[in-house]
Amino acid sequence: MGCVQSFRELCDRQKNTNVRLSLPAVCIVWQTAMIILFGVFIRYNEESDAHWIEHRKAKNISSDIENDFYFRYPSFQDVHVMIFVGFGFLMTFLKRYSFGAVGFNFLIAAFGLQWALLMQGWFHSLDYTDGKIKIGIENLINADFCVAGCLIAYGAVLGKVSPVQLLVLTLFGITLFAVEEYIILNLIHARDAGGSMVIHTFGGYYGLAISWMLYRPNLDQSSRLQGSVYHSDVFAMIGTLFLWMFWPSFNSAITDHGDGQHRAAINTYLALASTVLTTMAVSSLFQKHGKLDMVHIQNSTLAGGVAVGTAAEFMLMPYGSLIVGFCCGIVSTLGYIYLTPFMEKHLKIQDTCGIHNLHAMPGVIGGIVGAITAAAATESVYGPEGLINTFDFVGDFKDMVPTQQGGHQAAGICVAICFGVGGGIIVGCILRLPIWGDPADDNCFDDEPYWEERQYQSHFTVMCSLP
Amino acid sequence: MGCVQSFRELCDRQKNTNVRLSLPAVCIVWQTAMIILFGVFIRYNEESDAHWIEHRKAKNISSDIENDFYFRYPSFQDVHVMIFVGFGFLMTFLKRYSFGAVGFNFLIAAFGLQWALLMQGWFHSLDYTDGKIKIGIENLINADFCVAGCLIAYGAVLGKVSPVQLLVLTLFGITLFAVEEYIILNLIHARDAGGSMVIHTFGGYYGLAISWMLYRPNLDQSSRLQGSVYHSDVFAMIGTLFLWMFWPSFNSAITDHGDGQHRAAINTYLALASTVLTTMAVSSLFQKHGKLDMVHIQNSTLAGGVAVGTAAEFMLMPYGSLIVGFCCGIVSTLGYIYLTPFMEKHLKIQDTCGIHNLHAMPGVIGGIVGAITAAAATESVYGPEGLINTFDFVGDFKDMVPTQQGGHQAAGICVAICFGVGGGIIVGCILRLPIWGDPADDNCFDDEPYWEERQYQSHFTVMCSLP
Amino acid sequence: MGCVQSFRELCDRQKNTNVRLSLPAVCIVWQTAMIILFGVFIRYNEESDAHWIEHRKAKNISSDIENDFYFRYPSFQDVHVMIFVGFGFLMTFLKRYSFGAVGFNFLIAAFGLQWALLMQGWFHSLDYTDGKIKIGIENLINADFCVAGCLIAYGAVLGKVSPVQLLVLTLFGITLFAVEEYIILNLIHARDAGGSMVIHTFGGYYGLAISWMLYRPNLDQSSRLQGSVYHSDVFAMIGTLFLWMFWPSFNSAITDHGDGQHRAAINTYLALASTVLTTMAVSSLFQKHGKLDMVHIQNSTLAGGVAVGTAAEFMLMPYGSLIVGFCCGIVSTLGYIYLTPFMEKHLKIQDTCGIHNLHAMPGVIGGIVGAITAAAATESVYGPEGLINTFDFVGDFKDMVPTQQGGHQAAGICVAICFGVGGGIIVGCILRLPIWGDPADDNCFDDEPYWEERQYQSHFTVMCSLP
Repeated sequence: MGCVQSFRELCDRQKNTNVRLSLPAVCIVWQTAMIILFGVFIRYNEESDAHWIEHRKAKNISSDIENDFYFRYPSFQDVHVMIFVGFGFLMTFLKRYSFGAVGFNFLIAAFGLQWALLMQGWFHSLDYTDGKIKIGIENLINADFCVAGCLIAYGAVLGKVSPVQLLVLTLFGITLFAVEEYIILNLIHARDAGGSMVIHTFGGYYGLAISWMLYRPNLDQSSRLQGSVYHSDVFAMIGTLFLWMFWPSFNSAITDHGDGQHRAAINTYLALASTVLTTMAVSSLFQKHGKLDMVHIQNSTLAGGVAVGTAAEFMLMPYGSLIVGFCCGIVSTLGYIYLTPFMEKHLKIQDTCGIHNLHAMPGVIGGIVGAITAAAATESVYGPEGLINTFDFVGDFKDMVPTQQGGHQAAGICVAICFGVGGGIIVGCILRLPIWGDPADDNCFDDEPYWEERQYQSHFTVMCSLP
Repeated sequence: MGCVQSFRELCDRQKNTNVRLSLPAVCIVWQTAMIILFGVFIRYNEESDAHWIEHRKAKNISSDIENDFYFRYPSFQDVHVMIFVGFGFLMTFLKRYSFGAVGFNFLIAAFGLQWALLMQGWFHSLDYTDGKIKIGIENLINADFCVAGCLIAYGAVLGKVSPVQLLVLTLFGITLFAVEEYIILNLIHARDAGGSMVIHTFGGYYGLAISWMLYRPNLDQSSRLQGSVYHSDVFAMIGTLFLWMFWPSFNSAITDHGDGQHRAAINTYLALASTVLTTMAVSSLFQKHGKLDMVHIQNSTLAGGVAVGTAAEFMLMPYGSLIVGFCCGIVSTLGYIYLTPFMEKHLKIQDTCGIHNLHAMPGVIGGIVGAITAAAATESVYGPEGLINTFDFVGDFKDMVPTQQGGHQAAGICVAICFGVGGGIIVGCILRLPIWGDPADDNCFDDEPYWEERQYQSHFTVMCSLP
Repeated sequence: MGCVQSFRELCDRQKNTNVRLSLPAVCIVWQTAMIILFGVFIRYNEESDAHWIEHRKAKNISSDIENDFYFRYPSFQDVHVMIFVGFGFLMTFLKRYSFGAVGFNFLIAAFGLQWALLMQGWFHSLDYTDGKIKIGIENLINADFCVAGCLIAYGAVLGKVSPVQLLVLTLFGITLFAVEEYIILNLIHARDAGGSMVIHTFGGYYGLAISWMLYRPNLDQSSRLQGSVYHSDVFAMIGTLFLWMFWPSFNSAITDHGDGQHRAAINTYLALASTVLTTMAVSSLFQKHGKLDMVHIQNSTLAGGVAVGTAAEFMLMPYGSLIVGFCCGIVSTLGYIYLTPFMEKHLKIQDTCGIHNLHAMPGVIGGIVGAITAAAATESVYGPEGLINTFDFVGDFKDMVPTQQGGHQAAGICVAICFGVGGGIIVGCILRLPIWGDPADDNCFDDEPYWEERQYQSHFTVMCSLP
């Protein structure tokens, strides 16, 4: 014990995890910058401005219920729960990193969404008449989506980085996301309602590339904390279930009013149900005694929601959704069993939460499903107006046909992967600078370096070290 | 310790809990069947199909907000939370069965809702022009409702069955439910918005009958695990509260647009508030030192929501709702104190979660309240159009009067009980076959037989066995 | 150990915590009174009554979706979650008072909301034609709001009072709230959408005054239980996050249809995001090693939502919301670091949850922000109709101008503080009577006096007393 103690002290001397100056400085400076930029750029849009009553009359809108708020607010709140409770609690499975999981998730999200409102606003909601970004409920949802990309990346480096590193990861992540999203949605004109490509593929590869750059060869020394305890697994199920339940809202939050939102919710509901069954099947089949593994239940059951993201608003058909979910449950669970250990051993990618299996792979599958579904679209299935409406074949793109759209969708996948891997490598380089207060190997997966321990530290240590 | 070990090994030899072949086989075969059946039968309805835009114009619907999605989606998501988090966490109270509670609940629900979409679809949403079932948001809610019946039944056998048995229980449960529901709602023309009869009475007696068939005379041997620990009781409160809070959405989810949903939510809100007070009162009154019992708070506080289910959409009046809640809090808590031990000792019904007190009895009360309220309806209270609207006196039933409706409601209760008891006995016989991998008595209420234990098993055992 | 035992027995003899008669008596009598009063006074309003269909046609309302239910129900459910899960779990941070936190919170809320429907109904929803209170969804939201004031007060006395005392606190609290609210909103004509003044300032000072009256000089004896354990802090984060996420619904739940709800949600979303960053910054800055303190993250991150309550529906502008959140994160966190210990030591106010930092101070700040924003309102920013609409310059108040409104807002703050402090002192006197079954100092912060302990008591004690 004394030996471990002295070794730890040695590490602490090498690695200074004190973020007393850097964390407050980054937070305060950044928040001040946000206030200034919001003051210069951001205003309410016509649906959230007090002029709405006049606007309504001018546009002959018959009722307040036509305000976009009522179309999207319930979905927004569900997405909000996914971001803060879903992602936060999903990561509490580690026996001694619950504060970091929930707390830093909270920090990243609150930090990122402000920057996302600005970045996405410049690309999508800039009013050229007065140079202001006009925001409404849809912008809030998009900001939450944008943050999701960074939270996914956090999953890969969970427990191995300092909060300051996470803020840097988020700052660059949001910036890259906004550019990538603009290219995919506006320049390439791909559709991606639930963000299979834009959010999950990008976020997944971004995180994996960073984790690869931050490879820790001797991490197994801290393996004593890299596992779960009984109750931490139950806490993680809170995250899993809120993600699972509200995923239909995630995929339908920014789709077209009416049938678009309706269909996206149904497709996601079905894909997720299917995933649960195949995940349980594979989890049981690949264990010696047929027992289920909590890691698979917590994560792979969600893969169907990721994979149906792009195609959720298309006429994927109920059985199509079930097929997507079926495949993803199998692929994702097998990923946890075979791919994650392989990646750690041979590719030097340490993926704490297995985001490759939950986000990156299903995201790519989702992109492919979207491309196929789009290419196969016909007027008889969608109706002439429905086809234009669903694929937004208007303006510059009014001459596009479904097969072309399929190609554009495929191009979108490539852009997302490139931005993820490329951006991750660059940001990973930055994060390797020895100034960010990251923990020593022996302090990984431990709340102790960054969280005030009150009376319970000793108590907990005793609990964990029981035979 | 060695003695217990060898006894357990003996049991394990007798009872083989290895589900490595059966569980994956059932899941994969079933999911494949679902894909095929969905491919043959299920399509989007006109509100979730891409033809909506044309349909809207043809029907002269002024706005996308008139799509049923916006009437029901918020309620749907609340119901969804009740099914997965509510029921799941409510059952985590056992000290060592949280994975089974949340995880198998998840499995049953995901498995059952697909079958429910088909079964209910054939009865209620079949489009005779093309032989397809057309689904929309209301079907998703009904599928969740249907699953609730099976989850209630799971409460009675919690900790005593294998996941494969649960899938069998669910398969037959959903089938019986759909037939029973069709008889009660369509043939008998009873109204049951919140499913007091259709869901709770049926589900309750179905589970109790199964538990009776699976009676384990020596179960007290495993009593070491049949209790709660401090934190498991707090986890269970998560389930309780989400059920309690969202019950107004449950009872109003499929009622009529407008006043129907509005009134059902108000009635349920009031009944539940009243139940909390009488539950606390009775719980305190029947303890030697006036202390409150967590079991009552976790369960009986919900009885008012069950009992107001049928009458929630009627003009029950706010004070009527309070009276229903008042009575049910008392009845349900007394049930936990006197009836559950009596049933276990004398009727050989082992009811792990006390579903008789939370679902079966309040469900029957709810049916009776519904019958009385319906029989007492008058045109002066409902208005001429309101009366027709509320009780759906149209088509074949346009000559019905409220007193008749009361009789039909009463008939509905009988059908629900018969289906529950009868179906449960038959399914219980099937579940007694020695092929399903159920646990030995000594392994009941323990996650160990079906869940991979990682490092924490030994740790937990030490914690539990502390003096 | 024997010494502690005998001392505890001595205390138990002095203080009788047996509530076996008083708690059931109060609950049953009160609930019966509620049934009678509801029978005499409360009916459905025209939107929840079965006559709605005729009312709709008479008023030429084109669709059921115009029913207020669809404008407010999603927000209502979010508020409901805040009241029961948010407040309940936020208080579970104590290592051995989770049952009391969640359970008594549940009791108070269910008890209070019925009384609130009556009290607020008499002031706001009385139909003078027939002397009945007509309720709809907005009344349910207001009842939840009213209860929030009492739950805030509970935070100050958490762990130090009996359930009967809490019911007395709630009974008077709701009554005072309704009168105070009527004065502020109707007589003074201040606006307070999110209740910074009406709910948070009142509730905060009400609780602090009661805590001052119930000062326990020797409370440090029970300090062994006045702290958290690892998992109790994670449970508390469930409360924090649900409060944080749904606060935009809280502040927008009863604002004007259309832009009012839309803007209130955006402002609250932004203020809360900003608060998280400054809370983290200050928490880290004021610790020796730059570590974050869970108490601050659990509480101060919410202060921005409180402080933006009054002005949320005004044209505060997105950057204005960020500024409010920025300041409140700093003020609230500093409050926990300096003010709470100071108040306990020098002012004899023992504030278990730190409600002064989370509710009272930010509430006053919110009132001031509201006054300034109102006074600064101009027609060019709001539009002529928007100004009238937002500030409700109609009827008796149609000649008011924004600067006057600012003065009225300021008057509102004073009324809220006076009612809180004055009411709290009077109720505190009543609660000092030795008939309520409150616990001895040594039994404070312990579930044992009021909750049935099953097998786990001894187990827990061992866990807590480990070195």
